[in-house]
Amino acid sequence: RINADRLWDTLMDMAKIGPGIAGGNNRQTLTDEDGEGRKLFQSWCEQAGMSMGVDTMGNMFFTRPGTDPDALPVYVGSHLDTQPTGGKYDGVLGVLAGLELVRSMNDLDIRTKHPIVVTNWTNEEGARFAPAMLASGVFAGVHAQDFAYDRKDPEGKRFGDELKRIGWIGDEVVGARKMHAYFEYHIEQGPILEAENKQIGVVTHCQGLWWLEFTLTGREAHTGSTPMNLRVNAGLAMARIIEMVQGVAIAEQPGAVGGVGQVFFSPNSRNVLPGKVVFTVDIRSPDKEKLDRMRAKIEAEAPEITDALGVGCSIEAIGHFEPVTFDPTLVTAVRNAAERLGYSHMNLISGAGHDACWTAKVAPSTMVMCPCVGGLSHNEAEDISKEWAAAGCDVLLHAVVETAGI
Amino acid sequence: RINADRLWDTLMDMAKIGPGIAGGNNRQTLTDEDGEGRKLFQSWCEQAGMSMGVDTMGNMFFTRPGTDPDALPVYVGSHLDTQPTGGKYDGVLGVLAGLELVRSMNDLDIRTKHPIVVTNWTNEEGARFAPAMLASGVFAGVHAQDFAYDRKDPEGKRFGDELKRIGWIGDEVVGARKMHAYFEYHIEQGPILEAENKQIGVVTHCQGLWWLEFTLTGREAHTGSTPMNLRVNAGLAMARIIEMVQGVAIAEQPGAVGGVGQVFFSPNSRNVLPGKVVFTVDIRSPDKEKLDRMRAKIEAEAPEITDALGVGCSIEAIGHFEPVTFDPTLVTAVRNAAERLGYSHMNLISGAGHDACWTAKVAPSTMVMCPCVGGLSHNEAEDISKEWAAAGCDVLLHAVVETAGI
Ligand SMILES: NC(=O)NCCC(=O)O
Ligand SMILES: NC(=O)NCCC(=O)O
Repeated sequence: RINADRLWDTLMDMAKIGPGIAGGNNRQTLTDEDGEGRKLFQSWCEQAGMSMGVDTMGNMFFTRPGTDPDALPVYVGSHLDTQPTGGKYDGVLGVLAGLELVRSMNDLDIRTKHPIVVTNWTNEEGARFAPAMLASGVFAGVHAQDFAYDRKDPEGKRFGDELKRIGWIGDEVVGARKMHAYFEYHIEQGPILEAENKQIGVVTHCQGLWWLEFTLTGREAHTGSTPMNLRVNAGLAMARIIEMVQGVAIAEQPGAVGGVGQVFFSPNSRNVLPGKVVFTVDIRSPDKEKLDRMRAKIEAEAPEITDALGVGCSIEAIGHFEPVTFDPTLVTAVRNAAERLGYSHMNLISGAGHDACWTAKVAPSTMVMCPCVGGLSHNEAEDISKEWAAAGCDVLLHAVVETAGI
Repeated sequence: RINADRLWDTLMDMAKIGPGIAGGNNRQTLTDEDGEGRKLFQSWCEQAGMSMGVDTMGNMFFTRPGTDPDALPVYVGSHLDTQPTGGKYDGVLGVLAGLELVRSMNDLDIRTKHPIVVTNWTNEEGARFAPAMLASGVFAGVHAQDFAYDRKDPEGKRFGDELKRIGWIGDEVVGARKMHAYFEYHIEQGPILEAENKQIGVVTHCQGLWWLEFTLTGREAHTGSTPMNLRVNAGLAMARIIEMVQGVAIAEQPGAVGGVGQVFFSPNSRNVLPGKVVFTVDIRSPDKEKLDRMRAKIEAEAPEITDALGVGCSIEAIGHFEPVTFDPTLVTAVRNAAERLGYSHMNLISGAGHDACWTAKVAPSTMVMCPCVGGLSHNEAEDISKEWAAAGCDVLLHAVVETAGI
């Protein structure tokens, strides 16, 4: 078993960097706080005897050597970046659990055949720079590095420039590393484990996603002196599209979600009808057909809505991953570990995207999940207990050691 | 007649300060650009022989003395501040036409019994600091100065601090000045004069307004892993309220408008359902009963919408003025001037709010309007012709001189 107190204290120490305003964290990718968090993580890993490699996307890899010089490493990781009003566990738990299992293996003097590599992926959240899971996507060959470097945050700052600014462009070629296996431990971010009263989620699949960025073009005009029939109201069109997306997701129940989290009105002045409205629709389903049907419906119905108002509409797909089926052997290793340790468990489909969804393209991959209170995540109030955190880390230790071989 | 070329050149010189991105202006109130614009205006007025007074709200008053030492001045003015993506004429025309009529009176050696005071009111637009017409509102005793000083822009900067920062807190007590009459010349900002092919709008009334600021409280949650039935979606509630406001305004046709120009999602991240949405509804009507009925309908229906979604809803009225009837004697002076000069004219109800709406509380007041292309305003593409600008300024000259007495 891992050391529950040490894991918890390490989580609390990391949470001191980039504190939020309501008990959570704001440690968005490639900010000064991200840089500070990376330094702290580096010092912990080096103290645990691991050596660092960093690639040109800023992905961090800490290696604990194996006994077989020819064996590919088993990777364990997640991300240290957070949402602007994020929790203390989303991503961070998976990275620090990787560290904890190495510390525990050191304590217990366990040597594995395959090396173990603890990983922190850059910009998993996609909050500052879309799409999410950007750096693991480059690692898996899904995105070109130039594409990633050119992503811009809402202030227009480039990903590549910000990565350089915080001093974390490494020298390794992205994706050059080969993996024997990839494990990611994460909080569920949804309500199922808690509702079913299970300690461990054995993640068999991850649902797919489309991010559709809408740019609506209306006519900026005075809210007072522009008669209703002369308005070209991009804000009203947006409202109707939000309602339409809701309807499309409801019609595809169960196994589908859809919503809008980000909206920019321009010029965003109380007495100006917006000339431009940019917003992103997020739709997901574990069923590829359903996912693509939702996209098709939305892309068919949106122009009807905007045409009726004389509003211009352009739609760009700025994020996408297909539903993923995780590696059956690794899934079984996770289930067996939970069983052996006496933890209650169930199969889960991940509602959120994770770096494991991209590594699955290039290596056998899977995930372990623990519950979170009220299924709440992407919220500073995100919460888990020390016992929940530890149970998943125990399962991770057993599954990783089994896969890495003694 | 005034000097059309000089008026036009002066307008174009002012437009060089705080240029926009698409041919208009971004010279928002109490920015460095506002300070620069004020300095230029001051130099022009002083060159025309006028002396400056500034009150503690930053309102600027330039006096051309009259021949009767006991006579109260006739005021002429408007505002030099603009929307973030504003036009070159909204407000500016009225201030610089005031300057032009003094320059013309100097040229023609016209002396009046009553002094003439050319005025620039601070923060008419209400874009940076709500409500609109803030400083003329304090002048008219509608708002306390402390209330005005405490208004905050979206970055949290206080009006009082910003006024001090740009160096335009004067020493006059706001509202201490008494007016014989107040004239304001403005572009229509609506489509009527152009459609009716008239040169001059004789403004008899101004419609009233409510700005209702909504704060909706949902639950921040992950867009992927939060099932549809567990969402507390403040963004969806906002969409439904925007649609409802549209319906309320349409139901009150004609003589009513309603819409939303400003929206803030929080945390405004693509994969986070918003925990908080703040937006402002702008409703207007020349009919007080209709205006108040719209407000009542919106305030009754909004909680039904939000309750159905479990979303919290609070509504604050952050801007209001009642419909205004302008002074019949001054209205007649404007109409007679247009008639005498041979300009086509018609009666108008102002769709936008203006400083004249507040001065009307403390002095006989009225307005003159000229058309603008396509009725477009609060848009960088706002446009008028030199001839249109000059015609209104001619009318202003005649009405002001008649009222000020020779
Ligand atoms: N786990 C997580 O929140 N990842 C961000 C990408 C997504 O929105 O699913
Ligand atoms: N004229 C003008 O645009 N004033 C701003 C106040 C309003 O929204 O009516």
